[in-house]
Amino acid sequence: MNPQPAPTAAVLVIGDEILSGRTQDTNSNTIAKFLGSLGIDLKQIRVVGDVEAEIVAALNALRARYTYVFTTGGIGPTHDDITADAVAHAFGVGIDYHPEALEMLAARFKPGEFNEMRRRMARIPAGANLVKNTVSTAPGFQIENVFVMAGVPMIMQAMLQELAPRLARGALVHAVTVFAPIGEGAIAAELAQLQRGHVTVAIGSYPAFGPGGVSVQLVARGRDVAEVEKVAQKLEQIVRAAGVQPSRRSS
Amino acid sequence: MNPQPAPTAAVLVIGDEILSGRTQDTNSNTIAKFLGSLGIDLKQIRVVGDVEAEIVAALNALRARYTYVFTTGGIGPTHDDITADAVAHAFGVGIDYHPEALEMLAARFKPGEFNEMRRRMARIPAGANLVKNTVSTAPGFQIENVFVMAGVPMIMQAMLQELAPRLARGALVHAVTVFAPIGEGAIAAELAQLQRGHVTVAIGSYPAFGPGGVSVQLVARGRDVAEVEKVAQKLEQIVRAAGVQPSRRSS
Repeated sequence: MNPQPAPTAAVLVIGDEILSGRTQDTNSNTIAKFLGSLGIDLKQIRVVGDVEAEIVAALNALRARYTYVFTTGGIGPTHDDITADAVAHAFGVGIDYHPEALEMLAARFKPGEFNEMRRRMARIPAGANLVKNTVSTAPGFQIENVFVMAGVPMIMQAMLQELAPRLARGALVHAVTVFAPIGEGAIAAELAQLQRGHVTVAIGSYPAFGPGGVSVQLVARGRDVAEVEKVAQKLEQIVRAAGVQPSRRSS
Repeated sequence: MNPQPAPTAAVLVIGDEILSGRTQDTNSNTIAKFLGSLGIDLKQIRVVGDVEAEIVAALNALRARYTYVFTTGGIGPTHDDITADAVAHAFGVGIDYHPEALEMLAARFKPGEFNEMRRRMARIPAGANLVKNTVSTAPGFQIENVFVMAGVPMIMQAMLQELAPRLARGALVHAVTVFAPIGEGAIAAELAQLQRGHVTVAIGSYPAFGPGGVSVQLVARGRDVAEVEKVAQKLEQIVRAAGVQPSRRSS
């Protein structure tokens, strides 16, 4: 068996409002789960502000390294929406009004409402394909391995559904979570030994410190279901041997 | 007047659980708000997995560029906690048991519970100073301009309070939010013109598409309170001129 390596991905979140703390980014988490459902490995997330040089540098670093890059934010009609221009510059291509995008937008607005700034939303880098926006019309786009999406979560989610058929898929990663009411340090040596013996399964240990005392979620993740299940059972054995009762949680 | 430039910062979130989508990162947002309260400008956020080479590369890129770097995650007792070693490698320094950290941890655990893996939490890169952990004892640390914190939000927040006195501060950024029940595209030309006339104030436009129709939050941010207020009033004028009533929101 010589399986194809899984596609990889990065997320590039664009927006001053995330860096100022005004807005809690949730798009990255949505994209992470979406990619997981396709067997694509998300390897990095970056957040940069509404600064063209920052967007260009981050995009060029990420698109050279990963199978796909997904950007969110900065494709609206206002002056702070600079993503399309930044992407064009990153690729060294021109940018112009895209006929199909213009047509879609013209149909959405009432006569007189389709002003110059709203027409900006039809400016698409040369060589890009549109990603439909079923919520508010203004499209995202794909250029080579980069997908450019809106920042408004509802719109971003709709765009993910639109672009999904274009993505290569990988084998799914299976995850089992074993909860234990114990401090992770009490079983850390056994976890390390288990990890050494099962290199295709990643064992994560996530402690919690609540009013009811310490506990831990032990997560086994891997593409080989049988191996993941084997590791999960050994995790349960480790927990029982430490004198407490494990329980499975949905991951 | 020749004010000092504000200190800058980056956040480096470390953890497979963020990239898999299992965990929604909230630490970045907490740190963003915390830095805002000190007048420090957060410029970038990165999320990488539990992979030493990734942590080292990201940390070295960020610490060279910004006044401060804040990392979260990977300083517990288990095999997947590799941040302290990665930081030591990034700085090219050794790592060893820190006497004060050992002492604090020894005092926390009952006799027999302070095993070898828990002792790992006292391993601190050479030249680093501890950051106290008032929640679960195991300390974070500061090495040069890098602050290494836990990933568990409650612990991370306690560490932020501990390290706050060590940070240089900048002038505070003031923000005013003007809400308007209108599509941002209807006033985008006026916003662009206003932005061109007030370069020390950043005007952000954040649309929402709800069941009650479209709306927008217009945010004016800057260090000159009078300028921010002037821009906010002009934003309200723009909204009124478009035929709808603006209202201020707390930012």
